[in-house]
Amino acid sequence: MYRLTLLLFSLLWTGQMIFGQTQTEEDALFIKSIYDQTLQEGECYHWLEYLTSKIGGRLAGSPASMASVSYTKQVMDTLNLSKTWLQACEVPHWNRGIPEEVRIVNSSQYGSQTLNALALGNSIGTGNLGLTAEVVEVQSLDEVKALGRKVEGKIVFYNRPMDPTQIRTFNAYGGAVDQRVWGAAQAAEFGAVAVLVRSMTTRLDDYPHTGTLVYKDGIKKIPALAISTNDAELLSRLLKKEAVQVYIRNTSEMLSPKMSYNVIGEIKGSEFPDEIILVGGHLDAWDVGEGAHDDGSGCVQSLQVLKTLNDLGYRPKRTIRCVMFMNEENGLGGATAYAEISNKNKEFHLAAIESDAGGFSPRGFSCDADVSVFNEKFKNFYSFLPLLEPYGLLLTKGGAGADINPLKSQKGLLIGLRPDSQRYFDYHHTTIDTFEAVNKRELELGAAAMTSIVYLIDQYGL
Amino acid sequence: MYRLTLLLFSLLWTGQMIFGQTQTEEDALFIKSIYDQTLQEGECYHWLEYLTSKIGGRLAGSPASMASVSYTKQVMDTLNLSKTWLQACEVPHWNRGIPEEVRIVNSSQYGSQTLNALALGNSIGTGNLGLTAEVVEVQSLDEVKALGRKVEGKIVFYNRPMDPTQIRTFNAYGGAVDQRVWGAAQAAEFGAVAVLVRSMTTRLDDYPHTGTLVYKDGIKKIPALAISTNDAELLSRLLKKEAVQVYIRNTSEMLSPKMSYNVIGEIKGSEFPDEIILVGGHLDAWDVGEGAHDDGSGCVQSLQVLKTLNDLGYRPKRTIRCVMFMNEENGLGGATAYAEISNKNKEFHLAAIESDAGGFSPRGFSCDADVSVFNEKFKNFYSFLPLLEPYGLLLTKGGAGADINPLKSQKGLLIGLRPDSQRYFDYHHTTIDTFEAVNKRELELGAAAMTSIVYLIDQYGL
Repeated sequence: MYRLTLLLFSLLWTGQMIFGQTQTEEDALFIKSIYDQTLQEGECYHWLEYLTSKIGGRLAGSPASMASVSYTKQVMDTLNLSKTWLQACEVPHWNRGIPEEVRIVNSSQYGSQTLNALALGNSIGTGNLGLTAEVVEVQSLDEVKALGRKVEGKIVFYNRPMDPTQIRTFNAYGGAVDQRVWGAAQAAEFGAVAVLVRSMTTRLDDYPHTGTLVYKDGIKKIPALAISTNDAELLSRLLKKEAVQVYIRNTSEMLSPKMSYNVIGEIKGSEFPDEIILVGGHLDAWDVGEGAHDDGSGCVQSLQVLKTLNDLGYRPKRTIRCVMFMNEENGLGGATAYAEISNKNKEFHLAAIESDAGGFSPRGFSCDADVSVFNEKFKNFYSFLPLLEPYGLLLTKGGAGADINPLKSQKGLLIGLRPDSQRYFDYHHTTIDTFEAVNKRELELGAAAMTSIVYLIDQYGL
Repeated sequence: MYRLTLLLFSLLWTGQMIFGQTQTEEDALFIKSIYDQTLQEGECYHWLEYLTSKIGGRLAGSPASMASVSYTKQVMDTLNLSKTWLQACEVPHWNRGIPEEVRIVNSSQYGSQTLNALALGNSIGTGNLGLTAEVVEVQSLDEVKALGRKVEGKIVFYNRPMDPTQIRTFNAYGGAVDQRVWGAAQAAEFGAVAVLVRSMTTRLDDYPHTGTLVYKDGIKKIPALAISTNDAELLSRLLKKEAVQVYIRNTSEMLSPKMSYNVIGEIKGSEFPDEIILVGGHLDAWDVGEGAHDDGSGCVQSLQVLKTLNDLGYRPKRTIRCVMFMNEENGLGGATAYAEISNKNKEFHLAAIESDAGGFSPRGFSCDADVSVFNEKFKNFYSFLPLLEPYGLLLTKGGAGADINPLKSQKGLLIGLRPDSQRYFDYHHTTIDTFEAVNKRELELGAAAMTSIVYLIDQYGL
């Protein structure tokens, strides 16, 4: 890596242009100062501590989510920005209810055996009395379709594991999460009474992973719960021997929608104020755990970007805006409202950068854009690589982030921070996604990486 | 990254030679099978659990170190190798004694205040009664020299922090650890009675970090202890206000040297049995904690390399040897004996690969060699990069590993696994370097990375 960097630097130093951009030693020095400042004077870890340990889980519509709006707005107001504001958005308001109960009731080996479970977000409840039915194990949505009415009156148990051989764990997640998102609707279509889903992680452990499900219009809603991977293995073993009846009780319910807020602040650009460079994450988090990696990290990193630039006395040419979106987890209400208002105001986001893949050691950025501009924007962005490689950062094509995706029609570049993904699904949507799971340096390195590309895009455009 | 890889692959597929090596799609498929096998059927995490949770800290000369020799030899004997053996080596036998006590005795603010401390490895003790003296804070060995006899009768407190702005934390360690290694000898030369050293970590926390010190011949040995970074900050604050007296008691002592063992096993090569490819780590670990990242991880990863190759039915052309070295931490007795015997037997290590930088997510390999062969060997090794980049691996120049360094004179390539370094010094030489700190996937990915380069070097030489 260093060799290649040196080679490219030496080309730059001899006055060559690479990919049509001029970069200078000055940029390298400024990026070094960004890292020094963030690693020595960064505040993001302290902000994260408050957001997680003091406020905790903060699903859209909950009192804790409103506390997180107030807190992060207060932090923003200390950052000496040109402007800060709350942007209203409608969000669903789902409530988990009392602790879930999932229990095998008739095992000849275990008798009654409780399973570690969490209702999936947006799920309806079973009612106070719960329900009992026989379990049918499947590996896919297609298998349910093939079984057809054979699942009628049954509990469908989706048990296809995330593929451990995927090096990037998000690819493994992408290959398995259809069961969680669409499993209930698919099973209900053929008369199933409830759904159990193997938790979305490659680990074998006792923590169930919640996450959103989506019902289909015109199809009956049925309760759906995640069970831990250890319990999924257990249930599957028992099903190989005998018919298994499971009792499920959850009192989850969808309440009336609520008003909530995106939290926004910006430093106005001095030369091109209409070109916006957005940094953001999502403020909401599942009600279990503390939403530390998902996505408290992304929020405090985005705040840190503005703080670092201000602390270094940097006056941006373009408008640098931090957006903490509400309701990424179960509705994208904040992201939808933001894009609508932005489009109505004829704004242009030159770049939008989201951190929503955990507060782990950063390994680069993944880029997306409207197909009509992608090649040009990515090529220009790629020209920054020699300045980023010394920090272990690579640039790839791929998805950028759920909250910034609606901005694609503005034809800027969408960029996702890509931290090391190996530990992410150990914590994702569980009770153990807490402050302690985030490492201070790793969090700060992510913030510094984001600040560095904000600086470069601000200097050179795309 | 993927773009570059694709580009290079497309060159390969058109039959081009890169850097004088032919690589094939077959190699890419075999490397994929290495990763699949390791991530699905790897045993290294279970071996690590035994080595850490059951055996724990295992400093050379201790009963636990002998248990680790027995256990890993037993594991090796299950791997269906051509040969396994124990190689005798003499090691120092240092004993920490009863729990250390370090206490500020006269603070006008705190009165008596206990500091979290651990004796440094090889340190002598204060005797049962302990000692009390005034503390002089310094930032460097040079500052002690400048103070000269002013430190006579005093406790010298080395408090230069590891530089948090170093992106690779090992560089920050390298910039601060002279205080721990040579601080006692330097202070003793000018009459100091003991030494306290700020722990080697960028974190602010309460865990003291032990680690080896080296006394100088002809200079009086004085006790030396590490204190936690939080306590170093506290002590430094107090020293700005008033003279501080500290009481130290430790009963550490160096006992008579002992015989111990390197644990070795190999698969004999079918075509070039005299060309050895070594994989290894060190079996000893500090007596506090469980030696999970340092270096249980490296040992079990090295064992996993042989197991994976055997499980895949791979018959190597060259001899693949796993060596778990004894006594890396405080003497290199195992590494010294290994190189001596190897040289005496006129062996040639074509490559030696050490994993001793933690069981974290792998980011590449660092290479070293005798200057007369470095450019050629590195160039040839570098030609493998396109096959490694899809797994997030980079190849750099730099140090390889303390245990394999004595093999440099054989003029093969020395290679160190380079995992992400951000969390390493949170755990290094502390009570919290335990099994729980190691992530199963990250450990396995390191093993798979090592296996992949063993395969490539075995196939193509260097």
